[in-house]
Amino acid sequence: MSEAKLYLIPSPMGESNPKHIFPDYNWEVISKIKYFLVENVRTTRRFLKLMDKSVVIDDLHFEVLDKHTKYEEYSRYLNPLKNGESIGVISEAGCPGVADPGAEITLFAHQNNFDVVPLIGPSSILIAQMASGLNGQSFAFNGYLPIKGDKPIKELKRFELRSKQENQSQSFIEAPYRNMQLLEIMLKTLSPNTKLCIAAGLTTDQEFIKTKTIKQWKGKLPQIHKIPTIFILLA
Amino acid sequence: MSEAKLYLIPSPMGESNPKHIFPDYNWEVISKIKYFLVENVRTTRRFLKLMDKSVVIDDLHFEVLDKHTKYEEYSRYLNPLKNGESIGVISEAGCPGVADPGAEITLFAHQNNFDVVPLIGPSSILIAQMASGLNGQSFAFNGYLPIKGDKPIKELKRFELRSKQENQSQSFIEAPYRNMQLLEIMLKTLSPNTKLCIAAGLTTDQEFIKTKTIKQWKGKLPQIHKIPTIFILLA
Repeated sequence: MSEAKLYLIPSPMGESNPKHIFPDYNWEVISKIKYFLVENVRTTRRFLKLMDKSVVIDDLHFEVLDKHTKYEEYSRYLNPLKNGESIGVISEAGCPGVADPGAEITLFAHQNNFDVVPLIGPSSILIAQMASGLNGQSFAFNGYLPIKGDKPIKELKRFELRSKQENQSQSFIEAPYRNMQLLEIMLKTLSPNTKLCIAAGLTTDQEFIKTKTIKQWKGKLPQIHKIPTIFILLA
Repeated sequence: MSEAKLYLIPSPMGESNPKHIFPDYNWEVISKIKYFLVENVRTTRRFLKLMDKSVVIDDLHFEVLDKHTKYEEYSRYLNPLKNGESIGVISEAGCPGVADPGAEITLFAHQNNFDVVPLIGPSSILIAQMASGLNGQSFAFNGYLPIKGDKPIKELKRFELRSKQENQSQSFIEAPYRNMQLLEIMLKTLSPNTKLCIAAGLTTDQEFIKTKTIKQWKGKLPQIHKIPTIFILLA
């Protein structure tokens, strides 16, 4: 059996101290990997340098893995595994495959019987859920809100209804530059007693996490314009 | 403003090397905390000793926070915060408030305007989702399967249908001693082409993560009796 594995490697979410968010062991694993599938080569180079200043970037091989990557590339992308070399998957921020590219090629790896090993690190979705105080026995992450016309309103109402019917926390995200606009829509659309957690800038100096009812948020919105944020609601 | 905060502190899931799963920073934070709300005092003592052999357990204050804890206790439990002392919440295994006690008192802390700070560590739900290769843009964790009569079968079919209709990965857990029984039920109940990820013993030496179709699992089930496991399905 080959020892080559597909490692899923969490990366920083914004400007964070790596010692605060990654186990030392991650460095150990990463330092032995020569092949990387990455959402953003520049960000990854910076991350690897941050992790270890002595890294020789030119010795490493990078392929871009993002939403434009074609399925036809996957087999070639996993060639190093066939040759006994491990591969690291690194997304732009946070955990690969969770609200980030990586799931499809991970599934492809399973289908071809390669071992997949996740490393530990920050996931904004999980951190927000943990810190929200909202039901963590049943919760759903719904990805990006739709943007056109009245679709966001319909979707918010659907989340609210489901959270009520199933007592399932519903989380979602928005492009950060539309955060304040989304908050205004939520204040108008959701029931006054629905609880809303706003979890912004997680693991950075700007970290803000607070859960209040829609009624309590009115007139006291936090400034989260352009700050990556997870929203969680529970009616 | 007081600097006292409610820290949510991930703990090991089984026998794991703490250096593999926790950032060093967690030790820094924990070593300054004197008040803990914990699911299991004995497990927590062992965890704190593992983290730092020089810890003087007798200097620390523990209160039990589990499913039997009454809401009426919460105010007293948070007394240290009122006196400017931080509190750490630690569950039996993994992340407090996520498939573990902790959410209700966290919500109580928000309602009383105390700061909540999540630390980074392993969550079996998140790790399983990341490593499954199943849709990570939309996913739900559904907690424990119901156990009586044909309820588990009905619930599995509901998960399968929802995963198909919404392309939302559906994860759930079972009491580990019933894992093999559940697997047999899934093989009989789910469609042959439904994908099932079995993620067992995460972060331990027994770690097993594999995604296959129901058809492919038939006749080749892994031995996960009594091993904590996350199941994720996607039709």
